[in-house]
Amino acid sequence: MSKITSLDTYDVRFPTSRELDGSDAMNPDPDYSAAYVVVRTDQPHVAGYGLAFTIGRGNDVQKAAIDALAHHVVGLDIAEVTGDLGGFAKRLIGDSQLRWLGPEKGVMHMAIGAVVNAAWDLAARLAGKPLWRFIADMTPEQLVATIDFRYLTDALTPAEALTMLHAAAPTKAKRIAQLLEEGYPAYTTSPGWLGYTDEKMQRLAREAVAAGFRTIKLKVGLNVEDDIRRCRLAREAVGPDVAIAVDANQRWDVPHAIAWLRRLSDVQLAWVEEPTSPDDVLGHATIRRAVAPTPISTGEHTQNRVVFKQLFQANAVDLIQIDAARVGGVNENLAILLMAAKYGVRVFPHAGGVGLCELVQHLAMADFVAITGKKDDRAIEFVDHLHQHFVDPVVIRNGHYIAPQTPGFSAQMHADTLKQYSYPDGPVWCEPVDVAKAQ
Amino acid sequence: MSKITSLDTYDVRFPTSRELDGSDAMNPDPDYSAAYVVVRTDQPHVAGYGLAFTIGRGNDVQKAAIDALAHHVVGLDIAEVTGDLGGFAKRLIGDSQLRWLGPEKGVMHMAIGAVVNAAWDLAARLAGKPLWRFIADMTPEQLVATIDFRYLTDALTPAEALTMLHAAAPTKAKRIAQLLEEGYPAYTTSPGWLGYTDEKMQRLAREAVAAGFRTIKLKVGLNVEDDIRRCRLAREAVGPDVAIAVDANQRWDVPHAIAWLRRLSDVQLAWVEEPTSPDDVLGHATIRRAVAPTPISTGEHTQNRVVFKQLFQANAVDLIQIDAARVGGVNENLAILLMAAKYGVRVFPHAGGVGLCELVQHLAMADFVAITGKKDDRAIEFVDHLHQHFVDPVVIRNGHYIAPQTPGFSAQMHADTLKQYSYPDGPVWCEPVDVAKAQ
Repeated sequence: MSKITSLDTYDVRFPTSRELDGSDAMNPDPDYSAAYVVVRTDQPHVAGYGLAFTIGRGNDVQKAAIDALAHHVVGLDIAEVTGDLGGFAKRLIGDSQLRWLGPEKGVMHMAIGAVVNAAWDLAARLAGKPLWRFIADMTPEQLVATIDFRYLTDALTPAEALTMLHAAAPTKAKRIAQLLEEGYPAYTTSPGWLGYTDEKMQRLAREAVAAGFRTIKLKVGLNVEDDIRRCRLAREAVGPDVAIAVDANQRWDVPHAIAWLRRLSDVQLAWVEEPTSPDDVLGHATIRRAVAPTPISTGEHTQNRVVFKQLFQANAVDLIQIDAARVGGVNENLAILLMAAKYGVRVFPHAGGVGLCELVQHLAMADFVAITGKKDDRAIEFVDHLHQHFVDPVVIRNGHYIAPQTPGFSAQMHADTLKQYSYPDGPVWCEPVDVAKAQ
Repeated sequence: MSKITSLDTYDVRFPTSRELDGSDAMNPDPDYSAAYVVVRTDQPHVAGYGLAFTIGRGNDVQKAAIDALAHHVVGLDIAEVTGDLGGFAKRLIGDSQLRWLGPEKGVMHMAIGAVVNAAWDLAARLAGKPLWRFIADMTPEQLVATIDFRYLTDALTPAEALTMLHAAAPTKAKRIAQLLEEGYPAYTTSPGWLGYTDEKMQRLAREAVAAGFRTIKLKVGLNVEDDIRRCRLAREAVGPDVAIAVDANQRWDVPHAIAWLRRLSDVQLAWVEEPTSPDDVLGHATIRRAVAPTPISTGEHTQNRVVFKQLFQANAVDLIQIDAARVGGVNENLAILLMAAKYGVRVFPHAGGVGLCELVQHLAMADFVAITGKKDDRAIEFVDHLHQHFVDPVVIRNGHYIAPQTPGFSAQMHADTLKQYSYPDGPVWCEPVDVAKAQ
């Protein structure tokens, strides 16, 4: 029997605040970071990789939370984990003592997500398939067995999920071929960071359109006059046929969001992302009613499936973001994708950060093949950033994500990256010029 | 200028799982624990004390999260902190990098709560007042200045809060005298743990009534037949005039809660606590409508003021629990108490655990004196457990909390407790018999 021998964790941080990449109304100076986890086994070259994404301080807390899960993982037979990915995730979520620290939210839940994702990575590698294909090749019954329906049955039952999956099953092969040929649409946030000048934003917006992107996203929320000007300049740059979304990163109270968005109403917006607290389901519903038909959206900070359920039940959003590393792993994201499909809400996955593009593309592609059959009315976020640190980095061509072919979940980082960017002892953080920044 | 010199943290755990005290439907074997924090200063005998409560595993993660806040605290002038408790809390909550780990929920938010509470403890000690009195003696303007109204203004504005506090101000002195004379009503959960036999439950229920308690609470949710029997036996034991509440500790999905509570409908229940996920505002509203007039309640796991706001807006609860150590400290609990007052929802504070009784009594008493003027239609939970470890333990007389007189927030533990129960190196955890348990 092959065993899991260790759960190794790493505090990896990139000094992105030096360039103002990633700056928005709530996050002026992030240092993109990962609490990175490797599930090692007694087999040579057999391991699973996962991560929780943070923006700097606190990455050590996130790493400690992953370490706290080791006793649920180390010593298990590999087959116990990969053969029952639903049971594995449930045991982590169900640890009654650790559950008190959430439940199912924040640091502890992201830690569970990182470990659960590493288990899926391991399972897909052993199956010799990229994760999207590993999911797509599951039977409806196998897929449903991975999902924890606790707290969901008033919105989605296992039987309903099975019905949806069975309806999609006969045409999966056709969509796999289509995906391999066409890729999956991407949109880009690269032009829109708040720290950029108007000129840089317009130049990057034009470059994005030239590169084949059909949607760009701008950060907003610091100053309404600036936002109006930047939206108009962006429209000038991209022309009438490319969609413009904006992202307020939770900046507003409900009345402020409504007043602000009315000022922006003459800019045709594809969506407004995170207008207020990610916890405020009713607030999103109120904003959406008040500014209709402007589409409202949230999700990158939505803590778990229970809050997504309510967003759907309350008609609070026109579309959602999912994030591969915020909730409790692949299993919970499958539950969210199934609910979104049932409620007819389009999904525009959140990416960027560290490895989020690499991870979330698999979920969107699995959704297209096995759940909704739709991809051309939605898109995955893309930021061209830090991909060089991954062994199987995303490939973007003509504004589309190309379907990964390498087995696994694409989360593995290069060994040299782990050394160079290790915090606080890696060389990047030890050079004299960086000491003040690293405080 | 007096300075804060360190933020010292301690992993303190009590092996309560050995006795099944504290067992409920979701938490079969808790080891009640505290991530304990001391804000030390350069003045002899001047310090502030706080804690985050956990139930065992993960207490080290909670401690690491408190450590991550040290740079916001160490080196400050004491007066900068105690003179602007609102600004102090906002800086902790507003750390944009740490905020990513929540925002404002779970491990990181409880850590902020522990440090913020320690700052209030320090301020009250320096003022020579117990915390409830320190709050009660604030002017309405001073109290409102401590509150972060972000994400609340669609439910409660600073102006509305001021109006409420000004209305209560002229009669505060009268209520202070009344509180000192009468105490504040308590209810007890001591008889109701799931691990207890029927006989032990009935004996403890009779003892509770004899001791002056007018409400007891039973844990439910594992088996409906057991629950019906235990509720009937409890009613036999306490007679017709003592209220019986039940607590399901998040055990049910929405449809299950409705079906289960209909089976219990012939037991007159004071309230049903945590029928489902604490994140499910709409679920609580659905359950409440379906089982009316049975009163529905939640709050001990409610992550922050934004979720409480929605519970009020959605008419999802008849009453709430607040917890002194779950949200971001005194400031956020004052916001929650003000919203509860505006929406006419009664507050039955959650206590028990480690130090939760000691802490939350101050908040309930401040609410009575400075906000609602009400106490006899509500009660603070009481569990007679672990109080001996505190320097200023709660005093219960004839079913009432006696108002504390010692300056501060009553969170300070005995030095010997920190030594004995330190995890994993304290003697309680090192004896051979305990090694297996401590794994």
